[in-house]
Amino acid sequence: MAKYHKPDEKTLQGLRDIANKLRIHSIKATCASNSGHPTSCCSAAEIMSVLFFHTMRYKTEQPRNQCNDRFVLSKKLDFVDVATGSLGQGLGAACGMAYTGKNFDKSSYRVYCLLGDGECSEGSVWEAMAFASHYKLDNIVAIMDVNRLGQSEAAPLKHDMETYRKRCEAFGWNTYVVDGHSVEELCKAFWQAQQVQGKPTCIVAKTFKGKGLKNIEDLDNWHGKPIPKDRVDELLKDLAAEIQVPNKTLCPELPKEDTAPADLSPISLPSPPAYKKGDKMATRRAYGVALAKLGQASQRVVALDGDTKNSTFSETFKKAFPDRYIECFIAEQNMVGVAIGCATRDRTVAFASTFAAFFSRAYDQIRMGAISQSNVNLVGSHCGVSIGEDGPSQMALEDLAMFRAIPTCTVFYPSDAVSTERAIELSANTKVLIQRKPNSYLSFTGYLFHPHQQTRHCCHLLPRREVVRQSDTDRVTVVGAGVTLHEALAAADILASEGTNIRVVDPFTIKPLDAATIVASARATGGLIITVEDHYREGGLGEAVLSAVGKEPGIVVTRLAVDGVPRSGKPQELLDFFGISAKHIANAVRQTFAN
Amino acid sequence: MAKYHKPDEKTLQGLRDIANKLRIHSIKATCASNSGHPTSCCSAAEIMSVLFFHTMRYKTEQPRNQCNDRFVLSKKLDFVDVATGSLGQGLGAACGMAYTGKNFDKSSYRVYCLLGDGECSEGSVWEAMAFASHYKLDNIVAIMDVNRLGQSEAAPLKHDMETYRKRCEAFGWNTYVVDGHSVEELCKAFWQAQQVQGKPTCIVAKTFKGKGLKNIEDLDNWHGKPIPKDRVDELLKDLAAEIQVPNKTLCPELPKEDTAPADLSPISLPSPPAYKKGDKMATRRAYGVALAKLGQASQRVVALDGDTKNSTFSETFKKAFPDRYIECFIAEQNMVGVAIGCATRDRTVAFASTFAAFFSRAYDQIRMGAISQSNVNLVGSHCGVSIGEDGPSQMALEDLAMFRAIPTCTVFYPSDAVSTERAIELSANTKVLIQRKPNSYLSFTGYLFHPHQQTRHCCHLLPRREVVRQSDTDRVTVVGAGVTLHEALAAADILASEGTNIRVVDPFTIKPLDAATIVASARATGGLIITVEDHYREGGLGEAVLSAVGKEPGIVVTRLAVDGVPRSGKPQELLDFFGISAKHIANAVRQTFAN
Repeated sequence: MAKYHKPDEKTLQGLRDIANKLRIHSIKATCASNSGHPTSCCSAAEIMSVLFFHTMRYKTEQPRNQCNDRFVLSKKLDFVDVATGSLGQGLGAACGMAYTGKNFDKSSYRVYCLLGDGECSEGSVWEAMAFASHYKLDNIVAIMDVNRLGQSEAAPLKHDMETYRKRCEAFGWNTYVVDGHSVEELCKAFWQAQQVQGKPTCIVAKTFKGKGLKNIEDLDNWHGKPIPKDRVDELLKDLAAEIQVPNKTLCPELPKEDTAPADLSPISLPSPPAYKKGDKMATRRAYGVALAKLGQASQRVVALDGDTKNSTFSETFKKAFPDRYIECFIAEQNMVGVAIGCATRDRTVAFASTFAAFFSRAYDQIRMGAISQSNVNLVGSHCGVSIGEDGPSQMALEDLAMFRAIPTCTVFYPSDAVSTERAIELSANTKVLIQRKPNSYLSFTGYLFHPHQQTRHCCHLLPRREVVRQSDTDRVTVVGAGVTLHEALAAADILASEGTNIRVVDPFTIKPLDAATIVASARATGGLIITVEDHYREGGLGEAVLSAVGKEPGIVVTRLAVDGVPRSGKPQELLDFFGISAKHIANAVRQTFAN
Repeated sequence: MAKYHKPDEKTLQGLRDIANKLRIHSIKATCASNSGHPTSCCSAAEIMSVLFFHTMRYKTEQPRNQCNDRFVLSKKLDFVDVATGSLGQGLGAACGMAYTGKNFDKSSYRVYCLLGDGECSEGSVWEAMAFASHYKLDNIVAIMDVNRLGQSEAAPLKHDMETYRKRCEAFGWNTYVVDGHSVEELCKAFWQAQQVQGKPTCIVAKTFKGKGLKNIEDLDNWHGKPIPKDRVDELLKDLAAEIQVPNKTLCPELPKEDTAPADLSPISLPSPPAYKKGDKMATRRAYGVALAKLGQASQRVVALDGDTKNSTFSETFKKAFPDRYIECFIAEQNMVGVAIGCATRDRTVAFASTFAAFFSRAYDQIRMGAISQSNVNLVGSHCGVSIGEDGPSQMALEDLAMFRAIPTCTVFYPSDAVSTERAIELSANTKVLIQRKPNSYLSFTGYLFHPHQQTRHCCHLLPRREVVRQSDTDRVTVVGAGVTLHEALAAADILASEGTNIRVVDPFTIKPLDAATIVASARATGGLIITVEDHYREGGLGEAVLSAVGKEPGIVVTRLAVDGVPRSGKPQELLDFFGISAKHIANAVRQTFAN
C-alpha cells in the first residue's frame, strides 16, 4: 500500500493562509450583497482550501471539463453543476456523478461533496449514503462540516462526532473523524480516501461556525447574516494578521485526460414505432420499448427506477442494457438526485421512472433541478383514478399541476404507443431541438391502449398538437389526453349516432400547450370547449386550456375532472364515478348547447 | 427489573393459529378484490398476531379510543389513523402519536409501527428514526418486517440483519433482531421493549415473503399479486392443516383509562388583532403572535418547525409555550408526518411551519395527509420573488399550485397582520366551522407589511372575500394577494391620479375562491380582470381566477405572474423585473382598454 507523505510546512501554511483569505472574502462578499452565510463559510474554510488547492485535480480555466474532479457544495450555497440551496440534495447528485464516472465514463475523476451537519437531518442524505455504499462508489468523498449550529438552534447531534461516525459506518462508508480546521489532518484524510477501494469515504470534520471571528465563533444567532458593518474592519484585521505569506499561490494538479467529450449528436429511434392500427398496447409498455430502442441508438442513454421497473417497464431497457440501468430502490428523492447528477456536464441522457404519484416525493429535487438547468427526463406511470384497484395512494392526480409549475419543463401526455415512442425520442434530444424546430413525426393513429397503464412523461420540449377528429359541422371542441382522449372519442361515436358531431383535440404536450390550435378549434365550434382529465380540477389540463383561452372573449370552457379524494374500484367504474367517462362527456356536450 | 414470563404453550399455539388464519384471510380477500399484497401479509402474519392478540392493549369495540395503543401499518396497506400506501411515511406519523402520548397526553398508551424492509430505503424513515431517539420516545416500537424481497427485485440489504441492527443502533434505537415467524421471540421482544426507558425500540424481524405458501415463499415476482385462482384451494388447505385449535379466540388486554377525551370546543383569539391603521407588521411576525394567542386559548394547540423558527416566528409560540413546541430540525417530510400524527384522534391542533418552498419536500406526505383526512395546518413563509436576496432556492413560486391540487385543502393567503391572525384562528377551528358558516371577522384594513416577509397558509376552510377598493366608475378588476395586493393598491393610486379608477379584490382564500365576488366585480368593470401574483403562471392565483370565470362568456383575464427561473436581487427590483410591480399593473390596466 502506498505510504502517506505529509506536505511540507510551507505548503501547509499556504493552505492555512488560503483558508483565512476565504474568510476575508466571505465577509466582504456577504456585506456587499447584504445576504449570505459568512459564519458557515468560516467553518468550512480549511476544507475548501485543502480540497481546491491540494487534493482536487482540475483545469482552472475549464471548470466544467469532463476530466475534472467534481465538487458539490450541498450546504446552503450554489456551485456550478447543481444548485443546492435546498438542503440535503447535494449528495444524491454527487452519487449520480460518481456512478457515472465509475461505471459509464470509467474515468479517474473523483467527486467531492461538502455537507452541513444540519442538513444531515434530511432523509435524502441517508438515501444517498445507502446508495453510494450499495454501489461501492469508491470515487466519492463526502465531507460533513460539523459546525454544531443550525439556523435557529444547535443541530440535534451537536459535536457528538462518534454518533456521526457510527451512522456513516452503519451505512457502509469508510469514515474518518478529523479536526476540520487542521489542514494537516484534512490533507491526510483525503489522501487516505484515495487509497480505499470498494467503499465511499466520509470525512466527518469537527469545525466551529464563524471560526476565526472573535465574539462570533461558535455562538448562536449568527446564521445567514452578514457581519455588521461596524465590526467588519476589526475582524478583517484579525484574519489578515493570520496570513503569513500574503501573495503565495498554490496551483491545483491537472486531471488525467481519460474522459472523452460527450457525443451530442441527435438520438433517433433506430426504427419507427411498429404498431398496426387497432393494436392494443399499454403506453407504459411502449415506454420500455422506446427506451430500449434509444439505448441501441446511443451509448449515452441510461435509465433509473425505484423498484417499480416491472410496472413502468423500464425493465425492458434493463434487459437490453443491464450496464446502463441503475436500480435506485424505494428512494425517489435520491433517484431524481442521481439522475440529475448523471446528466451533469452532458455525460448521459438520463430517464428516471416510477409511479407518477411518487414523484411528489421528489418535488423539491425537481424544483431545484429546474433551477440548476439540468436536462433530466422523468417518466411517471399509473396516473389518475383509471388505474383502478390499487387505490388513492397510487393514483397520480396532482402530477400535472406539479410539473406544469416547474419552469423550463415540458410535459408530455402521450395517448397511445406511437405517441409515447415519439415523446421519448423527442425528449432525449431536447437540448438540440430547443435550438431548431422539431422534425415532423408520426402523428396519432388511433392505437388503443389499456386505460390501466397510461403514462405521463415530463421533460423539456416544444409544442405538438393534433386535432384527432373533426368535421365541418362540429358543435363543441373536446380536449382530452391519455385515457380521457379515448373516452372523448367514444363520446364522439355516441353523439355521432345521434347526429351531433364534435371536434376532439389531443394536445400531446400539456406544457407548452398549443394555444393556437385550441383557440382555432373553439372558434370553429361556436366558442364551446369541454376539457376532460383524469386529474384533479386544479393545475391540470383544464386550467392549461383556460390559460390558453383566458384572453379570448366568447369562449366558454366546461371542465370535467376528478373532485375529492378518490377510492379504489374497477377502472371503468371509477371513470364513471368521477364523471369523466364517455357517457359523462356526451352528457356534457348535450348540456352545453342546451344552455 | 421485572422478569419475563414466557406465555404458556396454549397461548403460543393460539397465536400461531391466528397467524395462519390471517394468511388465509389475506389470500381470500385479495382474490376477491383482484388487488393486494398476500405475500407481504404472509411475512407479517406472526407479527400481527402477537401484536393484536398479545401485546397491544385496546378496546375492540372502540378502535380509535384515545386510551388505546396505536398501530401504524407503514407497509403498503391502509390502517385507520393514517393512510400509508405511499411508503416510508408511517414512522413519522407514529412518532407524532408517540410524542403526543408521552409529552402532551402524558398517558400510558404505546405506539407500534410496522415497516417493510423495502421502504427502509426511504430517507423519511431515517428522519423519523433520528427524531424518535432525539426525543427519547420510549413509548414507540418499530417493527421492521425484513422479508428480503421488494417489488421488482430483492431489497438492497436482503437478509443482512446485522446491518439493519447497526443502522438502528447508530440512530439511537434499542434494537432486537428476531425470527419474525417465532411467536415466542416476538412476545419476548415486545415485552422487553416495554421495560426500556429513554429509548425507542426497533424489532428487526427476519421473515420470508409469502411464508407458508408452497412454491411462493421467498420467491421473486409475487409482489402485490393475488394468488392465481387454480392454486388457492391447495394453499388454503395447507394453511388450515397448520391450525391446531380452529375456534379458539384470544382476547386483547384493555388499555389503562388514563387519557381524557379531547376538548373540541371552538378556539378563539383571546383578544382581537391589535394593530392600528398604518402600522407596519410582517405577516410572518403576525403568525407568531396569533399562534401564541391561540396557545393561550387552548392547551391543545401545538407548533412544529424545521429549524426556521426564528424566520417563521413560530418561536413566538415556543417562547410562550415551550412544552408545546416540537423542534423537528431540517427534515420537512418528517415534520409533516409528525404533525399529522399529533393531530390523529383529535389529540392536538397542530401548526407546522417552514419556508413555503420547503413544503415541496413533503408533498407526498401532504398528499397522503389529505387521503387520511387529517386535519393539519401548514404555514409557509418566504413566498415569491419578493423575498429578494436569498435567491431562487428559497423562493416559493409553486406552492399555490401544489396546495390547490390537494383535495379538502383550504389555501389562505393573508395580505396583512389582521387577516393573518384571523386566518390562523379560522384554521384552528376548521372541523367545527365546516359544519356551520364562519363567523364574520375583521376585514382588511390596510395595514402594510414588509414584502420580504409574506406568509401563505394552507389548511381547510371556507371562502372569504373582500373588495378592497371600489368606485362607481371602475374600469378593470385587479385581483392580487399578499405582496401583489399592495402593489395593486399602489397601482390604483397611480391610475387614480390619471383619472382612472380600478376595483381591487383581495380573495383571502385562494382555495376555495369566492367566484361570485370575482364574477360580479368583473361584470361591474366591463368584463375586464387583471390578476397579479408573486408565483409561477401555472396553478396559482391566475388560474384559480380563470377557473372561476371559465364558464362566463365576455370576461377577459390578463395575467401578470413570474415566468422563468428567478434570481437573487432586491425585493422591489425583482417585482419590477418579473413584471408584477405597481408600475406594471398600471401599464397592464392602460393596455387593457387600449385593446
